[in-house]
Amino acid sequence: MNNERSTQIRLARRPVGWPVHEDFETVTVDYDAPAAGEVRVRNEFVSVDPYMRGRMNDVRSYVPPYQLGDVIAGAAVGRVVASAADALPVGTAVLHQHGWTDVIQADAAKFRAIEEVPGLPLSLRLHMLGMTGLTAYVGLTTIAGMRAGDTVFISGAAGAVGTAAGQIAKLLGAGRVIGSAGSPEKVALLTDKYGYDAAFNYKEGAVRKQLANAAPDGVDVFFDNVGGDHLEAALASMNDGGRLALCGAITAYNTTERPVGPTNLANMITRSLSMQGFTIGSHWDKLPEFTEQMSGWFGAGKIAYDETIVDGIDNSVDAFLAMMRGANTGKMLVRIGE
Amino acid sequence: MNNERSTQIRLARRPVGWPVHEDFETVTVDYDAPAAGEVRVRNEFVSVDPYMRGRMNDVRSYVPPYQLGDVIAGAAVGRVVASAADALPVGTAVLHQHGWTDVIQADAAKFRAIEEVPGLPLSLRLHMLGMTGLTAYVGLTTIAGMRAGDTVFISGAAGAVGTAAGQIAKLLGAGRVIGSAGSPEKVALLTDKYGYDAAFNYKEGAVRKQLANAAPDGVDVFFDNVGGDHLEAALASMNDGGRLALCGAITAYNTTERPVGPTNLANMITRSLSMQGFTIGSHWDKLPEFTEQMSGWFGAGKIAYDETIVDGIDNSVDAFLAMMRGANTGKMLVRIGE
Repeated sequence: MNNERSTQIRLARRPVGWPVHEDFETVTVDYDAPAAGEVRVRNEFVSVDPYMRGRMNDVRSYVPPYQLGDVIAGAAVGRVVASAADALPVGTAVLHQHGWTDVIQADAAKFRAIEEVPGLPLSLRLHMLGMTGLTAYVGLTTIAGMRAGDTVFISGAAGAVGTAAGQIAKLLGAGRVIGSAGSPEKVALLTDKYGYDAAFNYKEGAVRKQLANAAPDGVDVFFDNVGGDHLEAALASMNDGGRLALCGAITAYNTTERPVGPTNLANMITRSLSMQGFTIGSHWDKLPEFTEQMSGWFGAGKIAYDETIVDGIDNSVDAFLAMMRGANTGKMLVRIGE
Repeated sequence: MNNERSTQIRLARRPVGWPVHEDFETVTVDYDAPAAGEVRVRNEFVSVDPYMRGRMNDVRSYVPPYQLGDVIAGAAVGRVVASAADALPVGTAVLHQHGWTDVIQADAAKFRAIEEVPGLPLSLRLHMLGMTGLTAYVGLTTIAGMRAGDTVFISGAAGAVGTAAGQIAKLLGAGRVIGSAGSPEKVALLTDKYGYDAAFNYKEGAVRKQLANAAPDGVDVFFDNVGGDHLEAALASMNDGGRLALCGAITAYNTTERPVGPTNLANMITRSLSMQGFTIGSHWDKLPEFTEQMSGWFGAGKIAYDETIVDGIDNSVDAFLAMMRGANTGKMLVRIGE
């Protein structure tokens, strides 16, 4: 068990609006051999997620803000390369929340061993078989109460949560699934690969009109990753008794202006709509149910996925910014080489 | 059974913004003796309600719009004065939906006999013991899932629904009930007569700041009759897991501009909030439960109420407009004399 150098991305100052590289700093840490009870993990994939932008602000939220000097915490998968803990021998694949670093050494209790399934890459634990998939599943079931036959509209449908949500909605019996995305290529992917019944490019015209065209009989369930004009369009198209699950509002994360609220919230009353915001941290109790369902679907070859890979821990910030701008299809990941 | 003349207020044209007298017409109808199965009812009290403004517009909503030439339909209570229907003999007190008229003659099936309770005026069937009370009850229980100990904020608290909601919240065990109203007199009434723990005048300062002062530990349930800055203020003060019942948005009913939505809807996500709009028409199944509860509270002397009375069917439009401007305390009613 030799010493090893870890490269870590830390928060240097709080971003205002769109983050810039100067808001982060790259620090190296040299680890000695693990102390009793510790393990050393080399990451294979590190996740960059929209919710991280919120944690960079110093405001009350569902997860505490990052402190200046903190490593950007978040999900990552890797493998134990040195161990002083019997529970996690060298070679064990693990999931953890240590975030933007290539190597991390810490108490073994901070890592969770994950079962490796032949043919399924570890990275899936960071999206379809992990938090992202669970978010899509909980949003559709627990939050929106989706029923068979429902027309479901998913904004930001070509992203990590969206590609999961569209497929899960169809597998759970949705009558019609509609998605929005930001390029013609993504729109084509939604209908050709992900089973969406209709999709449109929100950059090509008013969302409200494009959604009305795609959902002539109205929308029963809206799964929102975007906010802004997508939420307003959904409110305009909702059927009586419709349910809106608010998962994200990426349009608002990097703006310094106060976001404009939808002008048609009165539809909440006249159409008896329900809107519920959620974050996955309150719903980990659904993980076993989700894992069983999703593993079954994977086993049956029913789940497609995409990964957009950026190589090298030094490019984490770029990967994060690209994801926030919608450059990814499916899950954006940072891959850590040897 | 002599002939009798009925005075009726009908919709003459669709209002734009605030209704004006020219949007209505007064028509007289001479009734012959009731035909078989018909009764004639002289109204004692006619209700004017905020939701009527929506029905004056020609837009899709939960109740069909009034047609031009229609009597303004709505709740009224009166007494049978001529009858050709065994089920409703002369003298029976009835509740019906024929609206803005002093005398109405129609099929007996269109009227519901109501039990008269000594000491309780018939007019209560139009508010505390009727739709208004039921609206408050359903909003707090079915929609907002109020729990004992909750801090509850009610906007437009001195109105018909608000005076009911505040008392019901306390009787159901709310920990702290806060109300907003539009005059110092109403604010005093909320705390002195209606049992509110705190109240403020929304015309005296920013709602957001006044609410934050009145609810230092945050708000668990918001019962909204107002919309606009009240909704934004509530979103700012909601505790994690808070529930918002949207009952009305009177600020928006008479504006010709597109209403501005709340700028802080993102709190729905970060605080796991639920917002549900409702109209009472979908919740009549709760009427027996509500009636039993409310009758018990009345019997125990636990319910206060106010009525703001305007005399004469010819003044219905004025009563309606005054109610929309907040001139009423408690329930606004049109009283029909002999």
